[in-house]
Amino acid sequence: MTTAQLDATFLALADPTRRAIIDRLALGDATVNELAEPFAMTLPAVSKHLKVLERCGLISRSRRAQFRPCRLETAALDAAESWIEENRRLWSDRFDKLDSHLRDIQDPEEAPQ
Amino acid sequence: MTTAQLDATFLALADPTRRAIIDRLALGDATVNELAEPFAMTLPAVSKHLKVLERCGLISRSRRAQFRPCRLETAALDAAESWIEENRRLWSDRFDKLDSHLRDIQDPEEAPQ
Repeated sequence: MTTAQLDATFLALADPTRRAIIDRLALGDATVNELAEPFAMTLPAVSKHLKVLERCGLISRSRRAQFRPCRLETAALDAAESWIEENRRLWSDRFDKLDSHLRDIQDPEEAPQ
Repeated sequence: MTTAQLDATFLALADPTRRAIIDRLALGDATVNELAEPFAMTLPAVSKHLKVLERCGLISRSRRAQFRPCRLETAALDAAESWIEENRRLWSDRFDKLDSHLRDIQDPEEAPQ
């Protein structure tokens, strides 16, 4: 995933309505009408959010079916999660190293002279 | 974490410079000067990004030390990751259920009459 795609994915996730749409799609595919129902939003307003989600690859829409159901695509979510996880890993490694360094300096046999 | 905080966290992550700052801080605390170095950016430009990161809790800055080093705070990252993970889990459950349903209808003993 490119930097620009990751930018777009995090930006798409920075909105409560779009996150709620993803929450809903995680349970199963849904049409625009089904997605609009709980939000008391107009269909064009929901469609605008769906376009943002579709552009960054978080959802796809069927071109064939009559009601063009929306589907969650997990690759973009996975990329966003991987980026966060990698930072958590580096952060944890850092404390593991600090811990091992503190043990070394506490042990006079191992400590540098 | 509130919805507004999650909005702010994902928005903060939707920028390549801010993600690079987090990458750097995952390796260890750093001053504004140290953070500015690899980006060929002015200090005020970097400070602006740091304020965005600080506001949503992704980083903290020491109030006491002379150079006010920046530190990665993992709670905000964890909240963002948890949100993504929960959706991945719901999505996987959905396929597990579909799988079990397909097995049921393939087994005539179990299939509804």
